[in-house]
Amino acid sequence: MHKHASGVDSVGLRDIDMPMETKRSERNPGPEISAGVIGATGYTGLEVLRVLSGHGGVKVAFASSRGSAGEPSPIVGLNFETPEDVPAMGVDVVFLCLPHGESVPWVESLRGGPKVIDLTADHRPGSGREEGIAYGLAEWNRQQVASAEVVANPGCYPTGVLCALTPLSEAGFVDPERLTVVNAASGVTGAGRTPKTHLLFAEVSGDYRAYGEGNKHRHLREMRALLPSMPLLFQPHLLPVSRGILETMTVPVRHGVSAEDFRDSWRGAYEGSKAIEVLGTGLPGLSRVVGTDRLSLGACGVEGVSPTVVTVVAALDNLGKGAAGQAVQNMNLLFAWDIDRGIRC
Amino acid sequence: MHKHASGVDSVGLRDIDMPMETKRSERNPGPEISAGVIGATGYTGLEVLRVLSGHGGVKVAFASSRGSAGEPSPIVGLNFETPEDVPAMGVDVVFLCLPHGESVPWVESLRGGPKVIDLTADHRPGSGREEGIAYGLAEWNRQQVASAEVVANPGCYPTGVLCALTPLSEAGFVDPERLTVVNAASGVTGAGRTPKTHLLFAEVSGDYRAYGEGNKHRHLREMRALLPSMPLLFQPHLLPVSRGILETMTVPVRHGVSAEDFRDSWRGAYEGSKAIEVLGTGLPGLSRVVGTDRLSLGACGVEGVSPTVVTVVAALDNLGKGAAGQAVQNMNLLFAWDIDRGIRC
Amino acid sequence: MHKHASGVDSVGLRDIDMPMETKRSERNPGPEISAGVIGATGYTGLEVLRVLSGHGGVKVAFASSRGSAGEPSPIVGLNFETPEDVPAMGVDVVFLCLPHGESVPWVESLRGGPKVIDLTADHRPGSGREEGIAYGLAEWNRQQVASAEVVANPGCYPTGVLCALTPLSEAGFVDPERLTVVNAASGVTGAGRTPKTHLLFAEVSGDYRAYGEGNKHRHLREMRALLPSMPLLFQPHLLPVSRGILETMTVPVRHGVSAEDFRDSWRGAYEGSKAIEVLGTGLPGLSRVVGTDRLSLGACGVEGVSPTVVTVVAALDNLGKGAAGQAVQNMNLLFAWDIDRGIRC
Amino acid sequence: MHKHASGVDSVGLRDIDMPMETKRSERNPGPEISAGVIGATGYTGLEVLRVLSGHGGVKVAFASSRGSAGEPSPIVGLNFETPEDVPAMGVDVVFLCLPHGESVPWVESLRGGPKVIDLTADHRPGSGREEGIAYGLAEWNRQQVASAEVVANPGCYPTGVLCALTPLSEAGFVDPERLTVVNAASGVTGAGRTPKTHLLFAEVSGDYRAYGEGNKHRHLREMRALLPSMPLLFQPHLLPVSRGILETMTVPVRHGVSAEDFRDSWRGAYEGSKAIEVLGTGLPGLSRVVGTDRLSLGACGVEGVSPTVVTVVAALDNLGKGAAGQAVQNMNLLFAWDIDRGIRC
Repeated sequence: MHKHASGVDSVGLRDIDMPMETKRSERNPGPEISAGVIGATGYTGLEVLRVLSGHGGVKVAFASSRGSAGEPSPIVGLNFETPEDVPAMGVDVVFLCLPHGESVPWVESLRGGPKVIDLTADHRPGSGREEGIAYGLAEWNRQQVASAEVVANPGCYPTGVLCALTPLSEAGFVDPERLTVVNAASGVTGAGRTPKTHLLFAEVSGDYRAYGEGNKHRHLREMRALLPSMPLLFQPHLLPVSRGILETMTVPVRHGVSAEDFRDSWRGAYEGSKAIEVLGTGLPGLSRVVGTDRLSLGACGVEGVSPTVVTVVAALDNLGKGAAGQAVQNMNLLFAWDIDRGIRC
Repeated sequence: MHKHASGVDSVGLRDIDMPMETKRSERNPGPEISAGVIGATGYTGLEVLRVLSGHGGVKVAFASSRGSAGEPSPIVGLNFETPEDVPAMGVDVVFLCLPHGESVPWVESLRGGPKVIDLTADHRPGSGREEGIAYGLAEWNRQQVASAEVVANPGCYPTGVLCALTPLSEAGFVDPERLTVVNAASGVTGAGRTPKTHLLFAEVSGDYRAYGEGNKHRHLREMRALLPSMPLLFQPHLLPVSRGILETMTVPVRHGVSAEDFRDSWRGAYEGSKAIEVLGTGLPGLSRVVGTDRLSLGACGVEGVSPTVVTVVAALDNLGKGAAGQAVQNMNLLFAWDIDRGIRC
Repeated sequence: MHKHASGVDSVGLRDIDMPMETKRSERNPGPEISAGVIGATGYTGLEVLRVLSGHGGVKVAFASSRGSAGEPSPIVGLNFETPEDVPAMGVDVVFLCLPHGESVPWVESLRGGPKVIDLTADHRPGSGREEGIAYGLAEWNRQQVASAEVVANPGCYPTGVLCALTPLSEAGFVDPERLTVVNAASGVTGAGRTPKTHLLFAEVSGDYRAYGEGNKHRHLREMRALLPSMPLLFQPHLLPVSRGILETMTVPVRHGVSAEDFRDSWRGAYEGSKAIEVLGTGLPGLSRVVGTDRLSLGACGVEGVSPTVVTVVAALDNLGKGAAGQAVQNMNLLFAWDIDRGIRC
Repeated sequence: MHKHASGVDSVGLRDIDMPMETKRSERNPGPEISAGVIGATGYTGLEVLRVLSGHGGVKVAFASSRGSAGEPSPIVGLNFETPEDVPAMGVDVVFLCLPHGESVPWVESLRGGPKVIDLTADHRPGSGREEGIAYGLAEWNRQQVASAEVVANPGCYPTGVLCALTPLSEAGFVDPERLTVVNAASGVTGAGRTPKTHLLFAEVSGDYRAYGEGNKHRHLREMRALLPSMPLLFQPHLLPVSRGILETMTVPVRHGVSAEDFRDSWRGAYEGSKAIEVLGTGLPGLSRVVGTDRLSLGACGVEGVSPTVVTVVAALDNLGKGAAGQAVQNMNLLFAWDIDRGIRC
């Protein structure tokens, strides 16, 4: 009955069918590289620690936090340090999980040292500082990331929009004369952990509201830089949940293009990916992805409207595929591991 | 028919011991009409009782509930009765707060008796049963409702969409060749109180999802019947909140039309209304309207997209202006009171 | 001082066009006194404005807010002012809704002017500043409050504990040799509106935790001052809800005392009260009282333990009977109105 | 049948320093046993699937569900089957995740076949059916479980109470003449997934209430059976969260016993355990344990009350250590693996 317990030495041949856990450890009986996390007590930094703690190939050498220096980290067995004190040049990779605007001096000072994965918006496309920086939309920029010194990790909203729309745009399915309307909703961790009145429980609970109206959200420039030919309306909302992004897109299509065409296009683009899931039918909800590093895509045709549109929903965890999960994918590319090693899917 | 309005003047002497509701109405020193509520323990029925209890002009004569017959109502001082036992023909107005599909026999059997306000979808435009029935979009159909025997109370989603878009359409602001995209989100009371797995706390909490995708929501036919010239995409979502609807509309406009034009149009249509609020700037959030019978409207121009669109948000409580509040407005019209008497604004 | 009560008879003619609030008060055809609220944008201050707006006898003359000066109040039709600028000496009553510790100079500076109702902990029993100040446990201190200049409004937790236990203690039901264990849980508005990390939505949602452990909560001294003969263990918890307090008390009773004795004692103490409700059976839940100014009491005998105890639950809205509702009761006593005028029950 | 339980001892020497992932896979290049789950779409059954999917040593052979037969499981790669059709006799272990009352015939019919872990209350101490059944309080009954055919997995509430109080009672710290008051609060998954009105989102959200008052909760008999010398008052409450149990215990102690004595006692009892954590200071909150299989214990002395008590808080995930996590610990004991293999800590 338990035939799997036998003959371990022949495992190599069966690699494809075996769970990743086994493969990983046979090759790597201990961590292979060391990492540091700057800004490790924000929601993004904590999540990077969480993903790294289950990765297997990485030892976290330090985690900095201005506010919690000296306190023990609940996730990895070390104390938080003040940012100025960390041995950043001595590790293999540094994750910058800072408030937007604070990464620039770190990227400068780490030149020539460790690989840097910047989770802020500071070096993303459209920021004006993207030159010489790899854009870490992991499934799309593998080679560029693999050889980079600094990777700009994508924004949470652009990750869903770009992973959904890029293959559709490349396939010529989208009518560029009409507007693609993206209505997005995000949990509150997307707004960071700095205490602000409008993020208090008593304000958010029971509420739901639009923000960044009039196409003024910072993430729009990032989407436009990558999808220059598609006019986009991007309207985000704040959801009374802790984690997760759901993006509902009304995509204007050329005559005859169907939801099944969309799915085919995604299947082609993401074949073999663990991080991007294409639903065979229906649209994903938030609970399907919260707590994971997975992005889930669904499409649905719309009856009775002309000209034609297709509804697309992208669901992801803003802290998972929208931040820490993709950052770890980028780390995997930097160190020539499987792109999806250690991510939670 | 309004015989209860007479013989009230002897009440004054007992003022001191009477509840405030009674004291308040020295002008109307007691209820003027009697009402019955069929289906009074669903979310809609409970809310009708709540609004009526603060109205001043109405005495609730009975409240029926198949599941709670014999139990005391927490809101009005009477016991729930089985639907078959209620003296429905003896009251001035009956509110039907039943599951969709169950109003038809009630409307038949009450012909010639009390006024009927049907809160189900059974007799709304597009249902096939709307003939001879007034559509109770209160601010728009005052005269038709005032002289009706039966009023079909609008759906919660259509109330927001129609109050927002009708004046814009009439003003010729909207480009009828392009699609108006309505992304809506509703709290779970919109799905009723019958226990279903997908409405359990542990399923809804932390989740958010689209439903009725592909323009298949029942409410769409009601919107289309009233806005036949506007192609609509209506995409609802389920929010992890108890109450409230937020509808974010991307409205294609003719050249030169601005958000301020939208607001001017609304101000003209709803001048003097307590129930419909036009924000001078910004977009309303859910918490602005939850627990009230108010509909709040906001508009915002969108930069950098062509052809031009304006973003509109309508916020309302699905149980307030989206159900019980508007039902009471319709009752007010039926009995020649101020349209906004007793509503919570 | 209440000069606003004059000149009322000319109002009648305008009845039809005037809002209900005005019509209601033909008996009191306009506000009779004027009030000011200091600290009007905290949760307590906003709730005082809300209760006052429905009271009928009070005109809000000013509402101060350091952070929102110049902005319009969403509840009463006036703009927030800076605290230094308000005409505090010119009104009949001032509500102090400040952070704990900030009321002392206000009480000093208002001596000889308006009545003062202090909603902070600064002058409560056990504070060391309670001399010459009436303790506003409304149902219990009517006469003392009626003749006071300054009223210390009780804490939210003590209100439930004291209203539940005082009559039981006076009746001699409680065994003073044994510990009364109070396990309390409060919604987050009890912690105020100042932004702090541990009150963010993403921290509170899905969490529940004890705090103030070891009998160290500030409110304990207030309870002990009023119940000196009962040893108390008071253990509060933070609930993931916006509003409401539930206090579960394990009360050691003398031989033969039953839950029904408890209810009888409460019925005797609170007969005729609108604000305090005694359940005939069962224990109240939070949703029974949230959004109201009511305190609900229930008791239940416990089988199979010796020596005997009875379980008591007190439920109230921390912002209602626990703050603004009781403050308005105290105002009612100060101005010789019915104790429950204008409260939401 | 369970031959894999042998030949493991050569691994022991490397145990201490190596990460579990490595140990597991070096030893076991594939699953070693097969398991079946009966009732796999309830909250408990889904969680068992989740823990098993990450265990490494177990292949899930079937998962039954009356309501979802034929549908794919989202967690393990197989379809749900009708309970009657599963090959239950052919697997090594069966998890019974049924509604309470439905396990009895299953346990009968599986006699002589696979090991059975029953997650219902049907065979727990105090049920009247506990004879011949091992009680699976994992850390306390290792040997009894290891040699059992059927294990009754403990209730979620008793797990926390018993793990906290058993070592204290054995150490003689607790005064048996006085009452230990347990105030507990549980998330709604504790009440199962069968749709009921009082578990709907709109009922639970914003609410909090006591239930099972008067010492009438089913779990009390289980606690009493294991702690016969301690008089207990057990008062549960329903929390507006999906998962997690927090139990706040007021423990009467003999003269001179301190919170530090409690912690020492726990450290002694749970040394080396991954599943039971003793906080060095403070009390655990729910978010510390939700999503894990860990039980967290904290203690705090209480000042100023006499006779003396110590406050204890036990926090656990009702679906983790309170159900599926402990069930997997029991499976580990049955198959002679490390007790904490594959649990999420």
